[in-house]
Amino acid sequence: MQSKTKQLRDLFANGHLITAVGAHNGVSAKLVEENGFDAIWASGLEISTSHAVPDASILTMFELLEAARNMNESAALPVIADCDSGFGEVRNVEHMTRKYEAAGIAAVCIEDKRFPKLNSFANGNQDLVSIEDFCTKIRAAKAAQISPDFMVVARIEAFISGLGEAEALTRAHAYADAGADAILIHSKEKTPAEVFGFAAKWANKRPLIIVPTTYYSVTADEIGRAGIKMVIYANHAMRAAVQAMGDTLAQIRHAGSTRPVESSIASVQRLFQLQGMVP
Amino acid sequence: MQSKTKQLRDLFANGHLITAVGAHNGVSAKLVEENGFDAIWASGLEISTSHAVPDASILTMFELLEAARNMNESAALPVIADCDSGFGEVRNVEHMTRKYEAAGIAAVCIEDKRFPKLNSFANGNQDLVSIEDFCTKIRAAKAAQISPDFMVVARIEAFISGLGEAEALTRAHAYADAGADAILIHSKEKTPAEVFGFAAKWANKRPLIIVPTTYYSVTADEIGRAGIKMVIYANHAMRAAVQAMGDTLAQIRHAGSTRPVESSIASVQRLFQLQGMVP
Amino acid sequence: MQSKTKQLRDLFANGHLITAVGAHNGVSAKLVEENGFDAIWASGLEISTSHAVPDASILTMFELLEAARNMNESAALPVIADCDSGFGEVRNVEHMTRKYEAAGIAAVCIEDKRFPKLNSFANGNQDLVSIEDFCTKIRAAKAAQISPDFMVVARIEAFISGLGEAEALTRAHAYADAGADAILIHSKEKTPAEVFGFAAKWANKRPLIIVPTTYYSVTADEIGRAGIKMVIYANHAMRAAVQAMGDTLAQIRHAGSTRPVESSIASVQRLFQLQGMVP
Amino acid sequence: MQSKTKQLRDLFANGHLITAVGAHNGVSAKLVEENGFDAIWASGLEISTSHAVPDASILTMFELLEAARNMNESAALPVIADCDSGFGEVRNVEHMTRKYEAAGIAAVCIEDKRFPKLNSFANGNQDLVSIEDFCTKIRAAKAAQISPDFMVVARIEAFISGLGEAEALTRAHAYADAGADAILIHSKEKTPAEVFGFAAKWANKRPLIIVPTTYYSVTADEIGRAGIKMVIYANHAMRAAVQAMGDTLAQIRHAGSTRPVESSIASVQRLFQLQGMVP
Repeated sequence: MQSKTKQLRDLFANGHLITAVGAHNGVSAKLVEENGFDAIWASGLEISTSHAVPDASILTMFELLEAARNMNESAALPVIADCDSGFGEVRNVEHMTRKYEAAGIAAVCIEDKRFPKLNSFANGNQDLVSIEDFCTKIRAAKAAQISPDFMVVARIEAFISGLGEAEALTRAHAYADAGADAILIHSKEKTPAEVFGFAAKWANKRPLIIVPTTYYSVTADEIGRAGIKMVIYANHAMRAAVQAMGDTLAQIRHAGSTRPVESSIASVQRLFQLQGMVP
Repeated sequence: MQSKTKQLRDLFANGHLITAVGAHNGVSAKLVEENGFDAIWASGLEISTSHAVPDASILTMFELLEAARNMNESAALPVIADCDSGFGEVRNVEHMTRKYEAAGIAAVCIEDKRFPKLNSFANGNQDLVSIEDFCTKIRAAKAAQISPDFMVVARIEAFISGLGEAEALTRAHAYADAGADAILIHSKEKTPAEVFGFAAKWANKRPLIIVPTTYYSVTADEIGRAGIKMVIYANHAMRAAVQAMGDTLAQIRHAGSTRPVESSIASVQRLFQLQGMVP
Repeated sequence: MQSKTKQLRDLFANGHLITAVGAHNGVSAKLVEENGFDAIWASGLEISTSHAVPDASILTMFELLEAARNMNESAALPVIADCDSGFGEVRNVEHMTRKYEAAGIAAVCIEDKRFPKLNSFANGNQDLVSIEDFCTKIRAAKAAQISPDFMVVARIEAFISGLGEAEALTRAHAYADAGADAILIHSKEKTPAEVFGFAAKWANKRPLIIVPTTYYSVTADEIGRAGIKMVIYANHAMRAAVQAMGDTLAQIRHAGSTRPVESSIASVQRLFQLQGMVP
Repeated sequence: MQSKTKQLRDLFANGHLITAVGAHNGVSAKLVEENGFDAIWASGLEISTSHAVPDASILTMFELLEAARNMNESAALPVIADCDSGFGEVRNVEHMTRKYEAAGIAAVCIEDKRFPKLNSFANGNQDLVSIEDFCTKIRAAKAAQISPDFMVVARIEAFISGLGEAEALTRAHAYADAGADAILIHSKEKTPAEVFGFAAKWANKRPLIIVPTTYYSVTADEIGRAGIKMVIYANHAMRAAVQAMGDTLAQIRHAGSTRPVESSIASVQRLFQLQGMVP
């Protein structure tokens, strides 16, 4: 059986745009696979929401890794784990790398924010660590991995912090030089102009990854043409689940019966199928 | 602050029908609360589905308790934990009771099937343990609890196993005599006739609980008039989530963009609110 | 049954010196109880050692809390949890307080070092956070607790960091004013002079706690006379276990048989008794 | 890096007696390695004792697997996991095999007792499952593994249950035919006569493993000459730890100081070294 790390490397070696989708548990990972996507993003925002705690380093690596492990064991797709800022400093990053690789996760993604980090779309402190400090983390992760196929993604929050394109590019070059296998350039603009502008100047030194949460009108074709290698739809599974659970519960409450929702929700047999209880 | 065990006891002491809804994690529990229900059912079927493993004693008490704990800490409602057949024999039931009570869970529900148990709606072995063996478990649970308010619910699977009403009633009386605080009478019929017939003969020796998954057309009014004290909508949150996640991912896949789903799913701000990140 | 928080408060209300001993799991906690001590210290150093990872914020709150929970459920004594620097910033401290109190832990202890923290006896960065930042954490913990009996201990690392007595006293007053229920004054001197000097000037504004790891010749009588309320023998159970396991394994290896060690180790029946398998 | 499964296979392919030692956490595993043994036995008795719960299927697979994972990640030796009776029926065994193999564990050992099982040295029900039922479990485990190097050990409790040698041999042949990679023949006699008699008739169809807990006077030389391939000293690390912790705590209690124990326990620096905090 091919390893998940090799699977993900192969996706990066091929020509087409890789599409990853955020998940928060085994069943959402399985639905990502069922719908033909390439990879699973073990999303910190989704997992935090599932536990009903802020996406602000409240969940520990233990719970995040358990969720990623469950995703990995539930689907044949490679999992890229959202590891926030690496759970602390260099020693934490080394430990994290060993634990995630041992769990069969294909890649970890760390961002250049301080611990505890705050979700990039939330109001509050979005301060970055110094370039040198973050490069030390990247080097530590690369040195700690065992398989050469395991990937370390460096996520740049310079646009989120309002530091502009020059800073973003400087960081990207430094992170690539430190060994990052790919660069995730994050943005909270309403259009892809910011990340496309960055991509144009980056010239593909390492594969680029984007997360079009706020600039949701962008299409896969446009992303591919901009020279970006991977797109992550990072939180839509959880947003769909929350909306549907809320609507369904409201209907049941109003009707005093589950009859009105019966035809619009999955059957119990469908749950059995996703559980692997029945073929 | 009033304990959750006392909250649940008060619901049973009041006149109206108690409505509990199944959940599988912190956020689904929070949505049950937001929609005005009375209690949360920490559903084995939902939690198993979330992990993408069969509802057949594959998840251990550890994972089920962690999920119930997360629900309990995320919502102000009391949690009734679906504890399958008690995770083994008498010693397991004692350990289970101590652990769930220590976690602040208001009630545990154990069923008279063998370990490993199989979901009641699945094809396969639905054999029951002897009445005496199950009464021993109930007595063990009652003896292990510390607060007098903690509740032990006995779930009867006689209808599921095709053993008929006489057996169901015999078991109900034995379980009540052994100390069960409430009786959950389960059925997989298309109408409530089976459970309503049982309720008519039971004469309210202990409060009755039903789970109208297959007889979904029944209304809260009909349930209340039949002399039943609690209804559990046991799996609809997960069924709603699965349907919505699948539909949303299919749309994204088809469109090559998340634009078409943006208006039909919860916003990121809504996730922050459920996380307690923003007021 | 009296709560563990009340038990610990009563110990602080009584006149005599409280003796707490470090543990790392259920069985070591049980041995602390068997030997007549007053309280259990859920030691970060011991728990880290049991996992064979550095005592440097590598284990997450999840593993530390699970270990503390196991101690609390295995012994009738109250547990004081060593919570390092509070696992991050203010939000982490609030979350920590809620989780530990919900687990039935009687007290948490947080120290004024940065996250990730390093063991106080290890070489490396021992920088402190500002007084105001740490007071904010103390206030957050006190505001998050539910029972008024739950205790928050503030641990001062000023002596460890070489900042001297004046700084230690300034911090102690500030932490007490911020709501700390007790002050743990840490020292790595070979004699108790440093902590006794501190105690003399402190004048008992809040109860004092010491950890005589390096100044091990001090006696309980001397500690009591110095006006100190609690002594923690923080790591001796693990140090005894490590020494004995190593010696025993070496003997077995050398002899090619377990015969030489049979009379110097506990019997299997003794393990059963500690497990609660036999009376 | 060579896989642990391959490492263990190589040990079985070599001529000499393999010596495995029981552990219960990362640090005890590391001490097994330090002392030159070949493999680590993730002992159910030791792990249960560490949690202070009966060795009677009270701990779930989750806690046992977490402990085994910690041992595996703390030492370079292969880990053989004591998996009781497989945590239930066939579906549980399949799930167990997948989870342990994914965690990098080299082998699982399952025994032919019922769930919940009771420690073999404890008084109480030691009934076996039918040969056919246990063979079905072995076949399920072998079918579920991915790497051909992963090993499934079948543990025979016929002697423990008083069923005699003929039954033990019948079971051994059936289990080997069902695919077991090795046979663990258990005995609670005071001498090795029972297991040596068995070995003489077994004629090495598959490698034999013994656990000389009660017949502790036997030597490695005698075991090797009897044609046995592996010996497991299954519980001595925990028994050493329990004795030493109890003795040390008693001394501290009596002396009112840790001074008398200081020279007989490991230093804090030794703990740091085992943690990997210092070289």
